[in-house]
Amino acid sequence: MMHRQQTALVVGSSGSLGRCLIEHLSRDLKVRVIGADVIAPSSEDESRLTGGFVELPNTTSLPELTMALTDGLHQLIEDDQELDAVICVAGAWEGDPLLPSLPPPIDIIAENDEDDNNVQRLWLLDCAREYSENVERMLGKNLYPVLAAGYASQNYMTEGGGVDDDDNDNGGLFVAIGATAALSSTPGMLGYGLSKVATHHYVQTLGETSGKAVTTKSKRKLARRIRNHSSTQSYLNRLSVVGILPTTIDTPANRQAMPNEDFSEWTNSIDIAKEIGLWMRKPALRPHSGSLVKVHPNSKGDGAEFKVAR
Amino acid sequence: MMHRQQTALVVGSSGSLGRCLIEHLSRDLKVRVIGADVIAPSSEDESRLTGGFVELPNTTSLPELTMALTDGLHQLIEDDQELDAVICVAGAWEGDPLLPSLPPPIDIIAENDEDDNNVQRLWLLDCAREYSENVERMLGKNLYPVLAAGYASQNYMTEGGGVDDDDNDNGGLFVAIGATAALSSTPGMLGYGLSKVATHHYVQTLGETSGKAVTTKSKRKLARRIRNHSSTQSYLNRLSVVGILPTTIDTPANRQAMPNEDFSEWTNSIDIAKEIGLWMRKPALRPHSGSLVKVHPNSKGDGAEFKVAR
Repeated sequence: MMHRQQTALVVGSSGSLGRCLIEHLSRDLKVRVIGADVIAPSSEDESRLTGGFVELPNTTSLPELTMALTDGLHQLIEDDQELDAVICVAGAWEGDPLLPSLPPPIDIIAENDEDDNNVQRLWLLDCAREYSENVERMLGKNLYPVLAAGYASQNYMTEGGGVDDDDNDNGGLFVAIGATAALSSTPGMLGYGLSKVATHHYVQTLGETSGKAVTTKSKRKLARRIRNHSSTQSYLNRLSVVGILPTTIDTPANRQAMPNEDFSEWTNSIDIAKEIGLWMRKPALRPHSGSLVKVHPNSKGDGAEFKVAR
Repeated sequence: MMHRQQTALVVGSSGSLGRCLIEHLSRDLKVRVIGADVIAPSSEDESRLTGGFVELPNTTSLPELTMALTDGLHQLIEDDQELDAVICVAGAWEGDPLLPSLPPPIDIIAENDEDDNNVQRLWLLDCAREYSENVERMLGKNLYPVLAAGYASQNYMTEGGGVDDDDNDNGGLFVAIGATAALSSTPGMLGYGLSKVATHHYVQTLGETSGKAVTTKSKRKLARRIRNHSSTQSYLNRLSVVGILPTTIDTPANRQAMPNEDFSEWTNSIDIAKEIGLWMRKPALRPHSGSLVKVHPNSKGDGAEFKVAR
């Protein structure tokens, strides 16, 4: 069986999961891959990014990020080219900043009550800044790349419908990485949890705006109105949107951060990469649009299981 | 029965729901109210804010907002004063920006292909900016005030435990306004949905960090570790955190925006204000900490029903 060459945009292409994904797509599946990341690709990665690379700004500003990706794709993609898949694997983890258990450092000598009050004030403001910047960073690293990818790619996403191999229901595919932890409350990692729960909501919302969604009658009606509003939205008719929710991915950084955990409980990047590749090749095997799919290692230890959670 | 005077911080005190709430708390329940808003209070409102007012910056920066509220409270609240309740009713609604159904304006005459390409590029960047700024505004107006209120108030929130009237289990109360719509996908109002789903997650997370949460054993253990980490966190032992999820609140702005809707299906601000007042007075009537409570008008049309959704 011959496939036409497919094109994928991978946002987060220089990360651990991203590098594994572009290797699998480019080398094993002969997909033309466009990369995007805040970190430039290594020369090894560059050889896999046959579609080019967009260097993203390291920013917590959503407009800045979205405009940079939009601009980069505009420069890389010709008018008649299409994206078959957009996969956002950018992300990072941070816990809440530890609240200081002590009052302001006692080596700052306050001469009087007014000084004392001012020392306390600056210390309170410092703590407030630290807390909020943690939330901002988590939104910036986990949620905003997904929103930027979803927005910037819409002008290029394939409408599908061509006869492609044995499966002609080949609309575009959008994949983002969520987190099993964010399916419920996340004490101790508020910013991370907020960014992932919002990512899940994006997957569900874009997914249920698609013509492939299985949802309520009123949502289907609303989604149809949105799709019909603009001719630029026809890619939504056959788009599949899926969130992959790992617990922990087995990466060098995670092993270093949690050396005493049982690594066999962690999901290998290649298992996620292969599943995404499968969804690109065999659209019939995709979960329904808007679904959140948990992944964990299978019991035999030679792969991973993907199960729809929501 | 006599109550000691309670103190409440109301973030969003100049909005429609906020004004109704400060009137009810201050006039009917004799609560000492501290207001906070981007809009200065009217002289009528000012007379109800016997605890003072913090003017917030109109910003989409979470650190800026959190620091401003932290600083304002530091200046207003004496060391031995306590907050009995923090209620965040700030918020706004916007739908997605309509995607232009037309290519760039044809009155821009492009001299050649390069100009043409540049016109298209600037137009794409404009659309990207509009889309992202909508998301930023919704996070800034709906989510960030909740996060800022939760953070800034922690230094002052009562630990409870005193004998107060007929109910001595009187820990602090934190209330935020969510949205029934954000319990599922929100096509057509992505930014709003993201901001509200994240608000729900904050309520669940802060709520389940409290000693009053009904949750899993592992979450209780984790939450206990967080509470014990710092002496500043002891208010969490008895804190109740509740999200109120309306469909539509009956406000002049909403009547103007949706003149053809059935207003009797909308919730009156006073019914929300009264329920919050009840939770302040009778802690035993509070929903469990971390819960999301839907509100809609009752069938008799003379009040509202509050039902735990999650």
